[in-house]
Amino acid sequence: MGSATIFFWLQLPNVTKSYRTALTITGIVTLIATYHYIRIFNSWSEAFTVASKDGGDYAVQLTGAPFNDGYRYVDWLLTVPLLLIELILVMKLPREETVSLSWKLGLASALMVALGYPGEIQEDLAVRWFWWCLSMIPFCYVVFTLAVGLNEATSKQPSPAAASLASAARYLTVLSWCTYPFVYMVKSVGLAGPAATMYEQVGYSLADVLAKAVFGVLIWAIAAEKSAVEGSGKLLPN
Amino acid sequence: MGSATIFFWLQLPNVTKSYRTALTITGIVTLIATYHYIRIFNSWSEAFTVASKDGGDYAVQLTGAPFNDGYRYVDWLLTVPLLLIELILVMKLPREETVSLSWKLGLASALMVALGYPGEIQEDLAVRWFWWCLSMIPFCYVVFTLAVGLNEATSKQPSPAAASLASAARYLTVLSWCTYPFVYMVKSVGLAGPAATMYEQVGYSLADVLAKAVFGVLIWAIAAEKSAVEGSGKLLPN
Repeated sequence: MGSATIFFWLQLPNVTKSYRTALTITGIVTLIATYHYIRIFNSWSEAFTVASKDGGDYAVQLTGAPFNDGYRYVDWLLTVPLLLIELILVMKLPREETVSLSWKLGLASALMVALGYPGEIQEDLAVRWFWWCLSMIPFCYVVFTLAVGLNEATSKQPSPAAASLASAARYLTVLSWCTYPFVYMVKSVGLAGPAATMYEQVGYSLADVLAKAVFGVLIWAIAAEKSAVEGSGKLLPN
Repeated sequence: MGSATIFFWLQLPNVTKSYRTALTITGIVTLIATYHYIRIFNSWSEAFTVASKDGGDYAVQLTGAPFNDGYRYVDWLLTVPLLLIELILVMKLPREETVSLSWKLGLASALMVALGYPGEIQEDLAVRWFWWCLSMIPFCYVVFTLAVGLNEATSKQPSPAAASLASAARYLTVLSWCTYPFVYMVKSVGLAGPAATMYEQVGYSLADVLAKAVFGVLIWAIAAEKSAVEGSGKLLPN
């Protein structure tokens, strides 16, 4: 995440001014994630210890300190609306559409994260499913708006390369977003204990790398391609 | 590794735009390595202690905390594909070739690292050799593709100096890459205990410095030479 941040910011001079805000925000998303993953790492390390009992095999033991998954939700509350805004900005829609889409998708996605948290910290399966369902309402709205909106935007890109990148961004968005509700369900279907916690953390971490760093590389590639096409158009009007 | 990162990034304004992405990634590789070597250092320090028993000679003792070699494999999973991409980018091949080579070599090298890990954390020699053999399949594919591809690319470099640097990058790649399977074998041939662990760690660390920092200096030298040749070509069209 940290390396991705530096990559995006070092690429700022290589894209035209129109795409620098999108690329700046892309780097901010992975920076916020870097910070929270350090907190998650430390909380995880404090919650578990690996020790050899009486010279036998190494085993993982609880230290008694709780692992705090709240860092992940605070991270999402900040990064998910920003992720959507970076995608809207790189599409370079008309100004009013940019502003209205940013507000609608930004607020809906923040609501989605906020509604997921009360269920995440619950053991009661019925309560977990209740919050999962509530959270899925803004989730479906955002994913549907993106899938439809990006389909339209794809056809308006200035070059075939930019169109194919925009189409890749669309598929990656749907794929990475849909991972989260499934990972959330790991514990809701009755799996419990260390294995469930491990699957959940690995699943969220993989989905985060896809949705933030890999998605960011696509945003950069779209910005670089459109900068090149629009830049050359300026120098050599056809 | 950290100093190499700073060197590469401070050199960014000294190369032309075409080579900045290659040099940015070169610095990211050594940055990721810096981070993981700090983790490896801390894990090593926590696993061993040097103490004097009853006022006698100092001796190394186990603390009970396990030394975690996983950091090395996570490092390789990220840096090895990036290393190959920096080499492909600095060669400035046609766009389609760059994209297809980056995908093929990137995925093959990630697979190579992933197949090596299950054997690395094993004591059973037969199982170690099994994963070593599996991992050698993508290894041979990558090294062979590089040796052949770099041979072709060398002849297409814009100046004798650039060609001799590209040829040096080729030899360094083959030399540093071939170090890893031999170091992996240290434990597979039956060596065990502290001496084997030490040889393995020293071997991997030396190979990493060659494959990341020294190799990165060559990438920078190629980028600088080609920037100078191509830049002067623009000013003095021939």
